[in-house]
Amino acid sequence: MTATAEEFTARHRDTLERALEAIRERAFWTPYPEMPKAYGEEAAAEGKAAYDGYLGRSFPLVQPGTDEMVGGEKSPYGVELGVTYPHPDLDVLLPAMQAAMPKWRDAGPAARATVLIEALARLNARTHEIAHAVHHTSGQAFGMAFQAGGPHAQDRGLEAVAYAYAAQTAQVAAAEWEKPQGPKPALKMAKRFTAVPRGIGLVIGCNTFPTWNSYPGLFASLATGNAVVVKPHPNAILPLAITVAVLRDTLAEAGFEPDLVALAVEKPGEGLAKVLATRPEIRIIDYTGSTEFGEWLERNAPQAVVYTEKAGINTVIVDSVEDYKGMLGNLAFSFSLYSGQMCTTPQNIFIPRDGITAGGEHKSFDDVAADLAGSVEKLLGDDARANALLGAVCNAGVSERLKKAESVGKTVLASRTVANPEYPGAEVRTPLIAAVDAADTDVYTAEWFGPISFLIAADDTDTAIETFRKTVTEHGAITAAVYSTDDEVIARTEEAALDAGVNLSVNLTGGVYVNQSAAFSDFHATGANPAANSALSDLAYVANRFRVVQSRRHI
Amino acid sequence: MTATAEEFTARHRDTLERALEAIRERAFWTPYPEMPKAYGEEAAAEGKAAYDGYLGRSFPLVQPGTDEMVGGEKSPYGVELGVTYPHPDLDVLLPAMQAAMPKWRDAGPAARATVLIEALARLNARTHEIAHAVHHTSGQAFGMAFQAGGPHAQDRGLEAVAYAYAAQTAQVAAAEWEKPQGPKPALKMAKRFTAVPRGIGLVIGCNTFPTWNSYPGLFASLATGNAVVVKPHPNAILPLAITVAVLRDTLAEAGFEPDLVALAVEKPGEGLAKVLATRPEIRIIDYTGSTEFGEWLERNAPQAVVYTEKAGINTVIVDSVEDYKGMLGNLAFSFSLYSGQMCTTPQNIFIPRDGITAGGEHKSFDDVAADLAGSVEKLLGDDARANALLGAVCNAGVSERLKKAESVGKTVLASRTVANPEYPGAEVRTPLIAAVDAADTDVYTAEWFGPISFLIAADDTDTAIETFRKTVTEHGAITAAVYSTDDEVIARTEEAALDAGVNLSVNLTGGVYVNQSAAFSDFHATGANPAANSALSDLAYVANRFRVVQSRRHI
Repeated sequence: MTATAEEFTARHRDTLERALEAIRERAFWTPYPEMPKAYGEEAAAEGKAAYDGYLGRSFPLVQPGTDEMVGGEKSPYGVELGVTYPHPDLDVLLPAMQAAMPKWRDAGPAARATVLIEALARLNARTHEIAHAVHHTSGQAFGMAFQAGGPHAQDRGLEAVAYAYAAQTAQVAAAEWEKPQGPKPALKMAKRFTAVPRGIGLVIGCNTFPTWNSYPGLFASLATGNAVVVKPHPNAILPLAITVAVLRDTLAEAGFEPDLVALAVEKPGEGLAKVLATRPEIRIIDYTGSTEFGEWLERNAPQAVVYTEKAGINTVIVDSVEDYKGMLGNLAFSFSLYSGQMCTTPQNIFIPRDGITAGGEHKSFDDVAADLAGSVEKLLGDDARANALLGAVCNAGVSERLKKAESVGKTVLASRTVANPEYPGAEVRTPLIAAVDAADTDVYTAEWFGPISFLIAADDTDTAIETFRKTVTEHGAITAAVYSTDDEVIARTEEAALDAGVNLSVNLTGGVYVNQSAAFSDFHATGANPAANSALSDLAYVANRFRVVQSRRHI
Repeated sequence: MTATAEEFTARHRDTLERALEAIRERAFWTPYPEMPKAYGEEAAAEGKAAYDGYLGRSFPLVQPGTDEMVGGEKSPYGVELGVTYPHPDLDVLLPAMQAAMPKWRDAGPAARATVLIEALARLNARTHEIAHAVHHTSGQAFGMAFQAGGPHAQDRGLEAVAYAYAAQTAQVAAAEWEKPQGPKPALKMAKRFTAVPRGIGLVIGCNTFPTWNSYPGLFASLATGNAVVVKPHPNAILPLAITVAVLRDTLAEAGFEPDLVALAVEKPGEGLAKVLATRPEIRIIDYTGSTEFGEWLERNAPQAVVYTEKAGINTVIVDSVEDYKGMLGNLAFSFSLYSGQMCTTPQNIFIPRDGITAGGEHKSFDDVAADLAGSVEKLLGDDARANALLGAVCNAGVSERLKKAESVGKTVLASRTVANPEYPGAEVRTPLIAAVDAADTDVYTAEWFGPISFLIAADDTDTAIETFRKTVTEHGAITAAVYSTDDEVIARTEEAALDAGVNLSVNLTGGVYVNQSAAFSDFHATGANPAANSALSDLAYVANRFRVVQSRRHI
């Protein structure tokens, strides 16, 4: 190992140890502050200047096999970024990446982990810069782009590094084996066990969370010795280009080939993800996006291990509640955050058609619907506050679904466009809430990605639980929640959640929202229902990204 | 948990702890003695009587949905077994198995592990009985059937249980999460993490190692909370029928539904494995057998996680050797054991065409070929000894390949049929050794399953290493070996083995053979080349057989 790699190992050994403890204990922990002020007085201005410096230029990234510069990101807030990026000749780029792997493999799990933690530390130091890039590609409000695109994504990267290290060191690196042979001398063998990479990993980024959803697969594959080619969503390249550049610099400084990580940006209509996914060099794929393409990958890339996060129908069961206002506020926030453009936004809210008991009083279905609508209106009544919480619509599909939803069921709350003085071109939308009936399965068994939620009138709570179990089993969900003052109802919902394989939040009324998961504590998705075939992160997410190869000899 | 399950937990907790240590430390360990005498004075006679008691009868196994009794095993040693077994109506059997799972899930990882260790202890006590069943279905000589079919298979079962327990307990079962909020009160959540099963596992048994190759998947899936349906090879049902019966009895005694495990025997030509593999209830598949069907499973059962062990071309590189006689004896034994009907038998032996240095003397290619042939002849010269080491040909394909191999290259040693006085009908074959050239790639890049080995004349050792790297990368291998007195050559071979992803044995001359792997120390296969997509056992083999589902609430 080089002196620099050793220095990185010494610097980050404690962070690795702490992360290993965190993934086991699952209490609160993070090394990356989520408050912008924690990054120092100059950081905000420097980050903005760094971001502005990219605009209208070629992104400074020199990779093997670049045949032209491409890219045409337009911010959901209305600004043309004008940045271009390397487009790869795969027959040049992929062999260079393969050639980079043996030295990385030979460095071993600890060196790989700590070099990657150094890269995460550098990414963390550039959080303001990355926040602007995420803000202007995803359409997230700046505050959310800062947290989700910066420290929370870095947390998920570190978590993956920790799992990868734990899995690779599940057995000793070398052992002596001595088998008694009765009166004869024992048989003795020396054995070595080496974690070897699968090959090149492919990370296919998404539009809405370019860093958060990409970092787990990116860091898990690198930490297990693989090279990784990152194929960003064509609307959200910059955050991943910065990430790739930081990783390449860190790897080179540590004495490894920078080509262990590369960016692959597609030309319009090229379908580069499909091309890459079926290349024999690609042995691992991480994907976040539509069910259709996720299933295509699962079926058409048999040479690779494929991890997917797809669509789901996130569900809330409302049975009864003590803190009615707390529930209303909590759900209103969950509907609104990033204008519902999260894979975790609740969509299907089951409410008994005869109403519920809330804080000791009866509330009819219509009362609850009206109160939820009122709570959202109150939350978003001030445009400045609304702009800080909502997001800009990141693609036309969201606008189209909002239009279509206007004629579904009974509109309880119409969506409106919030004026954004800074970016007049941005389409910042508030949630649409529609009341439908449990019989309207055609409506609510599809995902309506965006700020669209259905209040579904159920015969009773037991029927709601059974419909929840059935619809999530069949169509998947990333999140689920239940509100009840009855321990029996909660127990039955938990049983249904175990059966359907979805993570459940119970009686959320405070500052924790069903659409948020905390790295090192909450698993994101379960891999147990059709919405995802894996979870971020767990042992299953890392253990098959490498294989162990053994050598043995007599002693 | 029932009192009996608690008793099993108390009884086997120490064994579980010791197994957890063993999978990490990978030194020698086994709780199951491999010497027949260790099982007591009466065990041999009792085991034989128990085996005889099955012949010509319906196997005593009562399962839901049995629509008829089927089976027609004929021992490779020439005896008709005449045992019939339940054939399932899957629309009755599979729902009964699904209904058995929630209680098993709720029992948790420790109870599941220790109930399964109790079942393994009961199987161990019946090793003599199982040995006769394996002997008369696989064609293994009795001594090998005893060890490989009994304690070594039980070791692999326990190893899988230990890995499953380790993976499921990689995080705490419950945690408190407390996130500071500056001057405001901290956010506090209580979280629970539950390992949930995927569904029903399918284990597809093979003819040659009905227990050894089935126990890892069977015990791994059960230990992670799944039910398992066992579909034996139609020629090797009895060992798995006994196994299923013991598991069902143990589970019932511990207070669980016996339908967590069931046997599914097919009618002639029914193709039950394909039918089962594509049922939506089947969520995990474990398979050992042909590459063709293994790849079919990998591509046509997208609803399941599929673990396969397929064909490979096991390779030995001979460069130079100190202990020439030791090498000859070791290889002769490896060629002969069970008449080469092992997925680990060496097939391709690369030798420089200009010969090697052996114990300080030059040996030409022809010398080495003649000496290897002589070593095999000497090893198998006595019929009694030959019958104890070889096996009966278990299917016509092996005989046909032996016939075909007679006209390949230059026959260095012809295969002969060894007379077996006890079973005159048995075809017990000695190895065929043929010399071919490195240019004859059509010959040696296919698997010739059976007692067939090729001595391949290579230009030099470096060329041999490169051909090894290329052929194993493309066609797979379970085992590889190198003989060299030159540390540089060994290092280059190790590098090629890491690249190709195959386990390597270096300079085996003593009582350890390339075709044998020891549970708790050696990984069987790597999952890194086309011969298998997984290893027995490691974390990757168990970590995706269950998923973790979370429930969280405010404190």
